[in-house]
Amino acid sequence: MVYDVIIIGSGPAGLAAGIYAKRARLSSIIIEKEYVSGGQVLNTYEVDNYPGLPGINGFDLGMKLREHCEKLGAEFVTAEVELVSLAEDGRTKLVKTQDQTYEAKTVILAMGARHRMLEVPGEEEFAGMGVSYCATCDGAFFKDRVTAVVGGGDVAVEDALFLARGCSKVYLIHRRDSLRAAAVLQEKVRENEKIEILWDTVVTEIRGHEQVERIGLQNKKTGEKTELPVDGVFVAVGNIPNSKIVTELLQLDKNGYISADETGATEMPGVYAAGDIRAKQLRQIVTAVSDGANAVTSVQNYLNSL
Amino acid sequence: MVYDVIIIGSGPAGLAAGIYAKRARLSSIIIEKEYVSGGQVLNTYEVDNYPGLPGINGFDLGMKLREHCEKLGAEFVTAEVELVSLAEDGRTKLVKTQDQTYEAKTVILAMGARHRMLEVPGEEEFAGMGVSYCATCDGAFFKDRVTAVVGGGDVAVEDALFLARGCSKVYLIHRRDSLRAAAVLQEKVRENEKIEILWDTVVTEIRGHEQVERIGLQNKKTGEKTELPVDGVFVAVGNIPNSKIVTELLQLDKNGYISADETGATEMPGVYAAGDIRAKQLRQIVTAVSDGANAVTSVQNYLNSL
Repeated sequence: MVYDVIIIGSGPAGLAAGIYAKRARLSSIIIEKEYVSGGQVLNTYEVDNYPGLPGINGFDLGMKLREHCEKLGAEFVTAEVELVSLAEDGRTKLVKTQDQTYEAKTVILAMGARHRMLEVPGEEEFAGMGVSYCATCDGAFFKDRVTAVVGGGDVAVEDALFLARGCSKVYLIHRRDSLRAAAVLQEKVRENEKIEILWDTVVTEIRGHEQVERIGLQNKKTGEKTELPVDGVFVAVGNIPNSKIVTELLQLDKNGYISADETGATEMPGVYAAGDIRAKQLRQIVTAVSDGANAVTSVQNYLNSL
Repeated sequence: MVYDVIIIGSGPAGLAAGIYAKRARLSSIIIEKEYVSGGQVLNTYEVDNYPGLPGINGFDLGMKLREHCEKLGAEFVTAEVELVSLAEDGRTKLVKTQDQTYEAKTVILAMGARHRMLEVPGEEEFAGMGVSYCATCDGAFFKDRVTAVVGGGDVAVEDALFLARGCSKVYLIHRRDSLRAAAVLQEKVRENEKIEILWDTVVTEIRGHEQVERIGLQNKKTGEKTELPVDGVFVAVGNIPNSKIVTELLQLDKNGYISADETGATEMPGVYAAGDIRAKQLRQIVTAVSDGANAVTSVQNYLNSL
């Protein structure tokens, strides 16, 4: 069987694509690595920015998206995709898992991204309990509290500025002696009385009881070790898109994201990218589900043009 | 007072922008024409494609979005905006209503669009009861039913193809003797056994009891009047963006939409477009809320750069 569309990934983008594909009566399957859907959203303790569902926890939202998809009759396959390639006709798409190769006229790539971790003791233990990888998502929960942002790029600096509007104090912890962020952002940070930059510093551990209470620091130049009491740690040291299965099929940007505009169209006709795997300004649940809807619209336009 | 951002419109795009603006702790107001929020969503009898809230009715979804926004403390002003312009400094934005002029560093334009109507008897009466302006939104409710699409452009033809995947029969009713749609789409329509094109034909009225049951037709060349039994009428004769208040500020595309990419950025620094008013591929609740989130992110980046 040649499907109209195969959706790879069952985070918010893949599930939204599944919803739109079923409603468009396209023949489709969603291939997911693990049964539990929802992607990174599952690890978010409170999602307060998915419009219409204030304060829902990440697990419940993931389940709601999956139930919506299942209610419409979406078919899921649990398998890890190893490669996406073109058939000999140069048009049909082949999606290879360990056991099987699926064929489709179009593919929606919704494999998402994962946050780069600090890889220090306590980081996994306190994930969602003071350790966050998304200031836009979780910053509002730290009003009048003390937080630390770890990183030195644009995102880290933007996160610090964002957090400083609500937090009582924000430490920006950077392992080098200068920031990589744009000059204007650096100025803003320096001018902000709530933000204190700790240069040449790495986080060595995260500690607390149930919630983050303090972090261990080490100065890379002097070797000096200190402790810093904080209520939250925002890790902003980059993301890793899960784009390995298409490195031969598509050109990726320098960070490994798939270049595609908001319609999801890649340089390969019939191949679309949706969600966090796509090069774009804002990676949120709400932009991911929008991408899923857009990608299915693009699939329909492509099928109409065949 | 000079606000960080003024949001104009309280449909899904404006309300999502309100949610993100409050969470970003920007000083903001939402100016809405009428108290009842939600924009066009309010008139949708069932919204089955907003991921996570299957089968919710449009009114409830509109209320949920507004409650979410209010819960975060968003401030609403009920007034009709007459003009958006620049202050003498060339940078501050002025938002003029009948009674007052508000000042802001940035503006998010989320005034939406309205569907062009057929303006025939029965159309308003059966809106949401068989008369729809969005096949993507409502088509799935007409499985194995007979529907009519009115129009001759790409959207009408795409709607007919979309509906033909689920409906038992689709009439495409066009007032001219040829379609304006792309050739490849026209071929698809002609090849599709479920679709019958009625040329040179206009709809004169829509009739039924509680639900649409039949439509009155007239052949424009012969003058002959007929009746056609249908379960649904999809009106696809165009949309009218509510962009009048910015015609002097921004260049609009030929259909009156605001040209802006997915970040919402217009040609005017600090002015962003979100939702149905923006020139884009897919106008849905899910793309509107995504636009609202993106526009606030762009606002923050702009404020950081001042």
